[in-house]
Amino acid sequence: MSQFEFFEKRLDFYREVAFSNLLSVLPAREPKRYFYDLLPEYPKRSGKGLRAALCLATCLAYGGRIQNAINSAVAIELFHNGFLVHDDVQDESMFRRGNETLHTKHGIGVAINIGNALNLFSLQVLMKNQALLGSKLAWQLFSESSEMLRQTLEGQALELGWIRDNVCDLSDRDYLRLALKKTAWYTCIYPCRAGGLIATGGGINPDRFYRFGWFLGIAFQIQDDLLNLVGNYGQYGKEIGGDLWEGKRTLMLIHLLNHCSSQEKAELKAILALSRPERTEDQVEWIYEKMIHYGSIAFGRKCARQFAGAALYEFHNAYGHLPDSEDKRFILEMVLYMIEREC
Amino acid sequence: MSQFEFFEKRLDFYREVAFSNLLSVLPAREPKRYFYDLLPEYPKRSGKGLRAALCLATCLAYGGRIQNAINSAVAIELFHNGFLVHDDVQDESMFRRGNETLHTKHGIGVAINIGNALNLFSLQVLMKNQALLGSKLAWQLFSESSEMLRQTLEGQALELGWIRDNVCDLSDRDYLRLALKKTAWYTCIYPCRAGGLIATGGGINPDRFYRFGWFLGIAFQIQDDLLNLVGNYGQYGKEIGGDLWEGKRTLMLIHLLNHCSSQEKAELKAILALSRPERTEDQVEWIYEKMIHYGSIAFGRKCARQFAGAALYEFHNAYGHLPDSEDKRFILEMVLYMIEREC
Repeated sequence: MSQFEFFEKRLDFYREVAFSNLLSVLPAREPKRYFYDLLPEYPKRSGKGLRAALCLATCLAYGGRIQNAINSAVAIELFHNGFLVHDDVQDESMFRRGNETLHTKHGIGVAINIGNALNLFSLQVLMKNQALLGSKLAWQLFSESSEMLRQTLEGQALELGWIRDNVCDLSDRDYLRLALKKTAWYTCIYPCRAGGLIATGGGINPDRFYRFGWFLGIAFQIQDDLLNLVGNYGQYGKEIGGDLWEGKRTLMLIHLLNHCSSQEKAELKAILALSRPERTEDQVEWIYEKMIHYGSIAFGRKCARQFAGAALYEFHNAYGHLPDSEDKRFILEMVLYMIEREC
Repeated sequence: MSQFEFFEKRLDFYREVAFSNLLSVLPAREPKRYFYDLLPEYPKRSGKGLRAALCLATCLAYGGRIQNAINSAVAIELFHNGFLVHDDVQDESMFRRGNETLHTKHGIGVAINIGNALNLFSLQVLMKNQALLGSKLAWQLFSESSEMLRQTLEGQALELGWIRDNVCDLSDRDYLRLALKKTAWYTCIYPCRAGGLIATGGGINPDRFYRFGWFLGIAFQIQDDLLNLVGNYGQYGKEIGGDLWEGKRTLMLIHLLNHCSSQEKAELKAILALSRPERTEDQVEWIYEKMIHYGSIAFGRKCARQFAGAALYEFHNAYGHLPDSEDKRFILEMVLYMIEREC
């Protein structure tokens, strides 16, 4: 019996609720071939639905009704899929969830448009909250979404900017700020805030989820970056080592930059200064070996565990006072799942 | 004295109102270098501000207060600038408003992010309507914006799809539908609808602007495509002939496809099947000469005038009952300006 049997079963339940609704809000009308047919492409490649699950579970754990959180859960997954489509263009990624990326199949122009459309349909779903939850709470959830979008776009800007300008003098602290913005906010903080607000009719201060969501999101991102280095393509669905080809500033790369010799740092900077197509297999291999040599991967694993530990501690501040429920247990188990998962 | 002296002076007034507000809503905070510094780049290249002007003028002509329409006018221009940034990536355009396009200067990844951010700040500006105009009207304006975004994205999808699949069997009717969606809706219909709704506190049926906005938008788009063929770079700010290099399905190209000999059509289709970098100067020149030969450019000019005429007729349905005002006169004169302008 898997350690995560309960967790995965419950995740299936949340995903089923969110995705059946998600697909029903994407219209099947003209123009189909270049537009509506392509909108469900990433959502149908069955992601895990962790973000929707965290929103629904938080709402339920706080005593709310699941129906009230469905719009927000669907919007979160639509935003996420829209980000992925744009992100794949920005990172020049070739594979996503075990299949070619959208721009590889349909071109950059179409992919930009589809990403925009997924964001638009998120907004349309959020507008349905007006009738469901009343105008005041609906505005509050809109405002949460707008703050989340700002954080995510700022994080994306930092990540792209560091690669473009080949910024190599980065600290762990810089990484934590980056991961807060580009990942933790929309993956964890925003779903918890929305779920808590919906359950209580706007009656709690959603800042209580900030530290839990941040640490959980960091643990998630580090694990994601570790899987990109050492994972199995069949399970992971993206190209292994893709982050090294992209020059992505992961915690492990920052560790290596700060721990290798100054001669190696100069060499590493020179490799990172190359554009993706200029970089060779040997160079990527060299970076990977240096990461092993300097313990950067072991360091990443250790940090992921520590952030999971910090998230467990914060779980008690954010959820500890609530009566026991399957949803509360699900959120608790998600913390370990984030760092144990292999895909 | 210019034929458009009154019009241009009034346009300056609306632009000043909209742009001073627009720049004030774009924050100057970190991360600056990769993000906030780049947001005002296109807006500062001083567009004409026709869309904001149409919204403000409609609100004033309908007896509304200009302060009430500023958020919507600013949002329209922010959306417009966000579209332009993405559009330039999608069309691989090199110049915009007399300067290099954003992705040419900063890369595709950064440009996608900046376009997204301009759209986000449009939403944030629209959220300010809640306090200014009350929740009900603010939702209505949100819903207008969401419909506009849908139309625009569908139009963009059609345009990109036709080029990608080298669709050559197109009629004038197909063109009118395309231009309705990709241009007329956000350039004319949406600004009029928003201005009318704001002035009357949601008390009119905004469908009354549909035909006026559609015809005005078509006239505008045809003139834009004519300037791209025969304009002056210094005034126009984009590369002349760029649409031919892109294979854009303009009314003139569709006219040529439907009027040249079948042998020429086969040749034209073969040229259009090439990717932009594969196309030669001679081939682009050949298309242009055939357009002259078959009267496609003269046909475009004639259609632009006819749509302007139809817009004048519809002006009376949409605005004719209102008391005379500078704003009403401005909107009337905009119809002629759309087809007489040289930039």
